[in-house]
Amino acid sequence: MRDAYVIGAGMTKFGELWSNSIRDMFVEAALKAIDDAGVDHIDSMYVGAMSSGLFVQQEHLGALMADYLGVVPMPATHVESACASGGVSFRQAFLEVASGASDIVLAGGVEKMTDGADVTDALATAADQEYEVYHGITFPGLYAIMARAHMQEFGTTREQLAAVAVKNHRNGSKNPNAQFRSEVTLEQVIRSTMVADPLRLLDCSPVSDGAAAVIVASEAVAKKLGKQRIRVAASAQASDTLALHSRKSLTTLNAVVAAAQKAYKMAGKKPSDIQIAEVHDCFTIAEVIVSEDLGFFEKGKGGEAAANGLTSLETGKIRVNTSGGLKSKGHPVGATGIAQIIELYEQLNGKAGARQVENARIGLAENMGGTGASCVIHILEAL
Amino acid sequence: MRDAYVIGAGMTKFGELWSNSIRDMFVEAALKAIDDAGVDHIDSMYVGAMSSGLFVQQEHLGALMADYLGVVPMPATHVESACASGGVSFRQAFLEVASGASDIVLAGGVEKMTDGADVTDALATAADQEYEVYHGITFPGLYAIMARAHMQEFGTTREQLAAVAVKNHRNGSKNPNAQFRSEVTLEQVIRSTMVADPLRLLDCSPVSDGAAAVIVASEAVAKKLGKQRIRVAASAQASDTLALHSRKSLTTLNAVVAAAQKAYKMAGKKPSDIQIAEVHDCFTIAEVIVSEDLGFFEKGKGGEAAANGLTSLETGKIRVNTSGGLKSKGHPVGATGIAQIIELYEQLNGKAGARQVENARIGLAENMGGTGASCVIHILEAL
Repeated sequence: MRDAYVIGAGMTKFGELWSNSIRDMFVEAALKAIDDAGVDHIDSMYVGAMSSGLFVQQEHLGALMADYLGVVPMPATHVESACASGGVSFRQAFLEVASGASDIVLAGGVEKMTDGADVTDALATAADQEYEVYHGITFPGLYAIMARAHMQEFGTTREQLAAVAVKNHRNGSKNPNAQFRSEVTLEQVIRSTMVADPLRLLDCSPVSDGAAAVIVASEAVAKKLGKQRIRVAASAQASDTLALHSRKSLTTLNAVVAAAQKAYKMAGKKPSDIQIAEVHDCFTIAEVIVSEDLGFFEKGKGGEAAANGLTSLETGKIRVNTSGGLKSKGHPVGATGIAQIIELYEQLNGKAGARQVENARIGLAENMGGTGASCVIHILEAL
Repeated sequence: MRDAYVIGAGMTKFGELWSNSIRDMFVEAALKAIDDAGVDHIDSMYVGAMSSGLFVQQEHLGALMADYLGVVPMPATHVESACASGGVSFRQAFLEVASGASDIVLAGGVEKMTDGADVTDALATAADQEYEVYHGITFPGLYAIMARAHMQEFGTTREQLAAVAVKNHRNGSKNPNAQFRSEVTLEQVIRSTMVADPLRLLDCSPVSDGAAAVIVASEAVAKKLGKQRIRVAASAQASDTLALHSRKSLTTLNAVVAAAQKAYKMAGKKPSDIQIAEVHDCFTIAEVIVSEDLGFFEKGKGGEAAANGLTSLETGKIRVNTSGGLKSKGHPVGATGIAQIIELYEQLNGKAGARQVENARIGLAENMGGTGASCVIHILEAL
């Protein structure tokens, strides 16, 4: 396999973008990424999106976006892995460059969620339709079960979960592309509207519109452009049972553990080498569990770590979700995995503004679908 | 890029499979392919499907199928390019093996279309929602426009279109997995119910359930298993404008032309080298146009060629759709591109039974989405 580099990035603001269609958003992000990379063409393109069929009655997003980006007859493919659709988009672009089939590939992601579809029902198609959704449960309920189990097994507290939201809103307040740039207090989180006990409104990532894109290139192209700087050190993907009830443990995400092992091995790194991590905090409990399963903290200690500032931008031993995470930056599901890569790209290039982590050289992005039935992990390294 | 081989294949019967769910069908096809290949594991998997969200309220098919196939935590990714979803699934598997990232990859495709969804509306999401579907047109109407244009420009006749259906039903009558194993007469086609003038019921491929899967492997694995026989000589993909009205010509499919040029170049072949071709005959006119755009016949002569038996199993200079094509074999959209590869695999291995083409060594599969806004072409060669 050949080396691959991230040489450009662009995204829309995340939020309720009433005047932007799915194609508008994707093209905006893609053009920004192409411009940032300084390339005069691309060879191929991937579009990550979870369910544009249900959200906006439009499938065939690869061809649509190639058309509206003006790059026909270039190959363009839509990939989906629920909320990990952006992550698999980046992975397919990486594989295509690594294979030698292409030199410059755009990896994008997009979701338009506010156009009238029943969002909770559409998102529930990421769970097991026949055995979970049929019986009435949707994602807040599924993650609430995981939260309750974590609390019972490890003594994780309501306040520790809230600490994740407080941190991520504080980080997001420094991110011009974030949906919510308002800080929240611990008190506000634990008194917000109950959604699915113990998860409250401010434990949940929002419904969002948005798009994000990056350019992945071969070493030769990156070198020629003077952009041989941010290398994809690892790309790993894993799966787990789709239904939560089929798993031995409700508090360990096996797909995260499996993908992390592969990613660390491929990059030749260990958890303590990672300086910054964008992780999939669709609900506060998700960040807690994932920060354990990535090996940043001992199993059961993720909540305590967040509450003690060990993941914060200001005092963290590892900075988690400097972008604000899904919680504050927003979660247009197909775009999320790419937006994580963009945060790493900006941090490793020293261009993260008020969120900048000093001397950031190694970053990890963890994107997952459903209740972690799919997980994609990438490690980027600044050379 | 490394060489890749097709070492195993399996599919369900295509048809109205009332007692089989989407997961049942995929697992059946995948297990058959794994068994046929004689492998004891796979490294990764792709699932091609167009719109399981709209058809059966289930996204996240990669993880679902990995779960039900019992291969968790293996990576599994859903890819979509409308009716070319199977073709892109095979292409991603090829790229993953060619990259060196994996040695044994399953490429599958599936669609469950008979479970109550409004099929014509769901399929219409492959067209441009904002500019085509919004104004009321669906696929029979779009292909009817192409047929009328071809008739006007080249004098293609109603009988020539019908000849495609007659041939494909005759081939399909010899295929045990085909949805329709009944032959039809020219008279029956041209007197069948009008759908969208000039296209009648027997010009249209049916609504189908089904799944198909193949195993793609590296040269080392193929060699070890004694299956170093069917090489993927070319994989090419291209796009066109999503909307038909944006194109300069209604009678040439630019994505087919562009993908074919790349495929022939990659394989070092020319159109006259191809002995058998599975092409995307969603409507009879599609086979006519594609057989021209692939370079098998001069532009405008595709209808005449079909009527004169130049594409038939019995008298063809090139045998087109020996499987029965989408028309007779059935068209569970996500499975179609893989089923095309399976027909080539069986023909090149001399295992196509009553449909066998003598000394078949080089075959081409052309799979497309929408009105040809995406196209994937593969060339397989028996060594």
